[in-house]
Amino acid sequence: MEIIGWIAAGLTTISFLPQAIKVLRSNETSSISLWMYSIFSVGILCWLIYGVYLKSSQMIISNLITFLFAVIILRAKVKNG
Amino acid sequence: MEIIGWIAAGLTTISFLPQAIKVLRSNETSSISLWMYSIFSVGILCWLIYGVYLKSSQMIISNLITFLFAVIILRAKVKNG
Repeated sequence: MEIIGWIAAGLTTISFLPQAIKVLRSNETSSISLWMYSIFSVGILCWLIYGVYLKSSQMIISNLITFLFAVIILRAKVKNG
Repeated sequence: MEIIGWIAAGLTTISFLPQAIKVLRSNETSSISLWMYSIFSVGILCWLIYGVYLKSSQMIISNLITFLFAVIILRAKVKNG
């Protein structure tokens, strides 16, 4: 069952890459929610801490990378509105 | 430490609500990535299965609700382009 954790971590983490590329390429973020990415970024930091507690490598690695993507999208939103 | 799991689950789950409201109200999804929400929805289903395996109520409840929000946003994207 550990493999399901890796697939889950891989998919939800990598899913933010096309969104990050899209906003960086287009500089267009009008339909992106500022509230979503603000709350989401803080939440991902909490998942990271919880993953350390659960000793789940899947959660630690995926939340580190997801946090990076979320901050890229959040930064683009703040910049472009 | 269980409380951190609940805070994490609460924040990342609720973060998708303002995004869902935004796309439903505006019918505007041009800067939303179709790839992101397609991959993300499948990934969240995998997290749900992994949460059942870990017996983590936080993961099960939050991923059920997140899946609902993700499908709402994905459906709006498919409809509005």
